[in-house]
Amino acid sequence: MTDQPSTVYLVGAGPGDPNLLTVRALRLLEAADVVIHDRLVDKRIMDLIAPWAERIDVGKRPGAPADAQDRIHEVLIDAARRADTVIRLKGGDPFVFGRGGEEAEALRAVGIDFEVVPGITSAIAGPTAAGIPVTMRGHASGFTVVTGHEDPAADRHLDWDALARLGTTLVVLMGASRVAAIADRLLDAGMDPTTPVAAVQSATTVAQRTLRARLADLADPELDLSIDAPAVLVIGTVAGLDLTADHGAGNHTADPMHDEAGLHRLVADLTR
Amino acid sequence: MTDQPSTVYLVGAGPGDPNLLTVRALRLLEAADVVIHDRLVDKRIMDLIAPWAERIDVGKRPGAPADAQDRIHEVLIDAARRADTVIRLKGGDPFVFGRGGEEAEALRAVGIDFEVVPGITSAIAGPTAAGIPVTMRGHASGFTVVTGHEDPAADRHLDWDALARLGTTLVVLMGASRVAAIADRLLDAGMDPTTPVAAVQSATTVAQRTLRARLADLADPELDLSIDAPAVLVIGTVAGLDLTADHGAGNHTADPMHDEAGLHRLVADLTR
Repeated sequence: MTDQPSTVYLVGAGPGDPNLLTVRALRLLEAADVVIHDRLVDKRIMDLIAPWAERIDVGKRPGAPADAQDRIHEVLIDAARRADTVIRLKGGDPFVFGRGGEEAEALRAVGIDFEVVPGITSAIAGPTAAGIPVTMRGHASGFTVVTGHEDPAADRHLDWDALARLGTTLVVLMGASRVAAIADRLLDAGMDPTTPVAAVQSATTVAQRTLRARLADLADPELDLSIDAPAVLVIGTVAGLDLTADHGAGNHTADPMHDEAGLHRLVADLTR
Repeated sequence: MTDQPSTVYLVGAGPGDPNLLTVRALRLLEAADVVIHDRLVDKRIMDLIAPWAERIDVGKRPGAPADAQDRIHEVLIDAARRADTVIRLKGGDPFVFGRGGEEAEALRAVGIDFEVVPGITSAIAGPTAAGIPVTMRGHASGFTVVTGHEDPAADRHLDWDALARLGTTLVVLMGASRVAAIADRLLDAGMDPTTPVAAVQSATTVAQRTLRARLADLADPELDLSIDAPAVLVIGTVAGLDLTADHGAGNHTADPMHDEAGLHRLVADLTR
């Protein structure tokens, strides 16, 4: 380690496709001494890290102890004290539900230099990969992004009644396991049960799959509706759009809203 | 032009800093035959376009006729019919208030192949560049992005009363000229007048400047408060945070909230 103070780069890895890394993120990954990463960063992105760089997996497992975040801060600070270029690599954008704010605060508190490198958030790029624009003239004059981590019935911060009548597209990250509870809460608050919804699973990867339905379908226990994490849930009239280019054979031009069960699984074309 | 059908790439240019282009956007810009761009794309990004590529400026001027968007569609279709690789380059992300959805629809309607390449949106990266995370544990459980294009008093789509009590960080794009009307509307709806706000002007460029205040200050006609476009307005407790690294001399460690006038102009460190 040189005398130059080291820097911790809080870097967004984007939704999965390495082509959606920023130029800055790519250059930093290639130059890193230590990469401290989450569990879900795409393998194709991990492969861009130099072979001699140290990799530390700090991905939290379900049921991990409450002090897991403090331990991550300790790992970051320790790495910064022994290496020059330390990357904290996070899926999506570091300041969108990535707890990047807390990590920046922890580094600042001990005087370690850091830089935040934004990434493409799956809140926008996930819907885009399925042909869904989060904003669209005549559909939505904005969008709201929340997580499905909290039980909507117990959420003290978010006013779900206000959310239901806001008039923006609603995007829910990390909500795969709580889809029915979210739909129930929005229906209770008076949201139109025919509101289109789409769940984009593993967006921008080869495993990408889009499920389209109506809000009421999500809350219906009779429907065998399973959404696999990671998934981005889009709720609003834009979720009925499918702005992907026509590629001829195998294309999904049928309107899934007219599918008999109200549900339809689509394998999206991966054009990149 | 070869026999291969041409593709129109709807490409997000990000907030300004060319290091925040995606790898895909950079490669496409270097390979483009025609680049159809908005007025506000950063000069450093325009310089990445090959010298032999044709550049068409379709930036709408204030007071442009209502059919301006249809004319852009005609320009896109015409370019696709005479060149192989056509880029429609937009600031930020093409599907965040970029009217990219309409352009994708117009291309699809005439059978022209297209691909949407997400970009870093200034709605998230603008606040980040000023040390403001749009989400932060204990502050906000989500964020809402709207534009200031519409007069809040005349907006038919957005429920500003719901917005005022939603509990997410509010980010307003293109709202520089309507700051007082937006603050008035939120105060009318009962939002706390002491809510921190920040206006990040020309984010990620050398002209970046952050103004910090309280919501009531924005609505106060006595305060000589001018915000220059382009600006990202952040409203919520996260706007009181300043998670930039300490760089020693010239650093802005003072809490602008305690400034006598309640307002303080800060020149942000540009660390990249």
